[in-house]
Amino acid sequence: MTSEDITIHRGLTGVYFDRSNTTYIDGKNGVLEYRGYNINELAEQSTFEETAYLLIHGTLPTQAELDEYDAELKSARELPEQICDVLEMVKDSHPMDALRTGVSALASFDPDRNDNSVEATIRKGNRLTSQVPSIVMAHHNIRQSKDPVKPSTVLNHAGNFLYMMDGNEPSAEAMALMDKDFVLHADHGSNASAFTARVVAGTAADIHGAVTAGIAALSGPSHGGAAENVMQMAKEIGTADKAADYVQNLLSNRERVMGFGHRVYKAEDPRAGHLREGVKSLSEEMGQPEWYQILEAVVEAMKPYARRGIHANVDFFAGVIYYLNGMPQDLFVPIFAVGRIPGWTIQVVEQFEHNILIRPLLQYIGEREQKYVPIGDR
Amino acid sequence: MTSEDITIHRGLTGVYFDRSNTTYIDGKNGVLEYRGYNINELAEQSTFEETAYLLIHGTLPTQAELDEYDAELKSARELPEQICDVLEMVKDSHPMDALRTGVSALASFDPDRNDNSVEATIRKGNRLTSQVPSIVMAHHNIRQSKDPVKPSTVLNHAGNFLYMMDGNEPSAEAMALMDKDFVLHADHGSNASAFTARVVAGTAADIHGAVTAGIAALSGPSHGGAAENVMQMAKEIGTADKAADYVQNLLSNRERVMGFGHRVYKAEDPRAGHLREGVKSLSEEMGQPEWYQILEAVVEAMKPYARRGIHANVDFFAGVIYYLNGMPQDLFVPIFAVGRIPGWTIQVVEQFEHNILIRPLLQYIGEREQKYVPIGDR
Repeated sequence: MTSEDITIHRGLTGVYFDRSNTTYIDGKNGVLEYRGYNINELAEQSTFEETAYLLIHGTLPTQAELDEYDAELKSARELPEQICDVLEMVKDSHPMDALRTGVSALASFDPDRNDNSVEATIRKGNRLTSQVPSIVMAHHNIRQSKDPVKPSTVLNHAGNFLYMMDGNEPSAEAMALMDKDFVLHADHGSNASAFTARVVAGTAADIHGAVTAGIAALSGPSHGGAAENVMQMAKEIGTADKAADYVQNLLSNRERVMGFGHRVYKAEDPRAGHLREGVKSLSEEMGQPEWYQILEAVVEAMKPYARRGIHANVDFFAGVIYYLNGMPQDLFVPIFAVGRIPGWTIQVVEQFEHNILIRPLLQYIGEREQKYVPIGDR
Repeated sequence: MTSEDITIHRGLTGVYFDRSNTTYIDGKNGVLEYRGYNINELAEQSTFEETAYLLIHGTLPTQAELDEYDAELKSARELPEQICDVLEMVKDSHPMDALRTGVSALASFDPDRNDNSVEATIRKGNRLTSQVPSIVMAHHNIRQSKDPVKPSTVLNHAGNFLYMMDGNEPSAEAMALMDKDFVLHADHGSNASAFTARVVAGTAADIHGAVTAGIAALSGPSHGGAAENVMQMAKEIGTADKAADYVQNLLSNRERVMGFGHRVYKAEDPRAGHLREGVKSLSEEMGQPEWYQILEAVVEAMKPYARRGIHANVDFFAGVIYYLNGMPQDLFVPIFAVGRIPGWTIQVVEQFEHNILIRPLLQYIGEREQKYVPIGDR
């Protein structure tokens, strides 16, 4: 093949690598559906547990099915003691690095460790759904020289996550907003982290390897890092009246405005609106309406770019919610990971169901046929 | 876009995702070049250290450059104490899982931990080149309740790796063959693990995340696992006269013959021949010529399939070499990883040099626009 015949798909933009039954995304019209259910209905009416069940099994659960799944999740919250010891060793790591290390280490403690069947993979994925929040919060306590908080056996997934931060039971409002945030983050097609998980699963590696790799991808600032950066930006802006100048300054220096634009969405990210409402009510409730005002002023300043398809994405509003919940900024990406485990699980399962090695090509453009010269003659 | 317009590239076979200056592969004619230098010349005349330098810097080193690089590698062999503690916690893990966990944990101990520049990434990659063999052998000793062997400060990379297994200085022949094995494994274009590392680097995550994910991909039996399976097969065959029946039986059950066939090579894998010679001399030298004879009998039985492009690949002969060096089978894939670190390093660097998020698409084929029904009404 001559180089003229080769088309380079940088970033694999627009290239379809497989079919899927999980998540429908219409980027042009801003539509997101999990298993055919619109994200707007799920965000308003469902819960994380129900949505996770839907993603994994393809149907909304009956009450009995949901109860059984919920019990399965609750029973898996406690970490093996050795995992806490590992987290102690990496206590100075960024929380995403600690999470990646913790999930990697969990592989050998799983009762299904040598079983790569779909059934075992779902069981392992469900355990990871419970263990990942425990790792994030255990590390967070360990790095402050505190003992990890023993997980609750009664709170729901979102409530237990907040509870494990400091052992205080969170408010109903905070729990509901965290729950919604997890629903909104549960899956999103073949984004870079889910795609990474699928590439790893494509080699017939197990779900612990795939999720470890997904966490590695999510830790990159161009993927999961935006929520952290948006909060940083909001702090730097300080007050709403300074937002327009700040944004103009970024743009004239050809820098990105954090939390804007998305590879897939050219319309408004359908997840963003749900969190916008949450930021509004939570910031007012907590007597800190300035955060909502700053974000709105940034949105206003970015309006001229909406025509080019640059809108606020899910990360834009998420960071302020986490901040108002008392989360330090470096936990924002781990929170994203907590929500995303069901999505990674079902995508690994889909990959296993008709597996193939994912191996694209690089076009070599360097020198050819160099002559090896012994070192004495160089 | 209607579904008729969509082409699905399953496995991304034949899809070019970027350009590269590192490794040239002509699968049709069985040609492999690192930076334009033919693998045959490098296997016969170069060393791992020199080849790694070539991959990283693009040119063969002068003696002074090689000495400096070699000193850099040697100085990085010792692991932080905490990494050995982590390996103790996961001592019952498969060595690939332990390696993945160890590399992930190393992230926060690296002096360049917060620097993602190309220069820092090369320094981190060079340290990983030295630390990965140390992790593999430290875990191997720890799982036998032995202390890790302190790395040698004088042996070359291959010799030190063998030395760290049990503290015995390896023979010159064993070192030379291990060195050649590492040269042959140092890079191989966008195979599934290097591609995984590039997808992770595409999110602007750091090289520790990228290599952790690459290890996860390499641990899959469809990628790095063949050498282990070939040795298993050779043991099951037992004697050369039974090879033909064994192969026929596999093929009539539509099972794969391990170590045969390659996504890219439709001619003979140019790396295989070098290891074939090594298996022949080593097995004779060690008074166990039966291993070479069994492998040759399998190659003979597979000859009818060579027309279809199914040839022995690099893994086919590698396993027996490791076995004759006294390595347990579950170290075969980690040995592959030890050799591959320079390749992952330079591919991550190339990705960083003109970075882009790698995010292909999935075609959704499930149900659309399902109506959410409250749980009481299901």
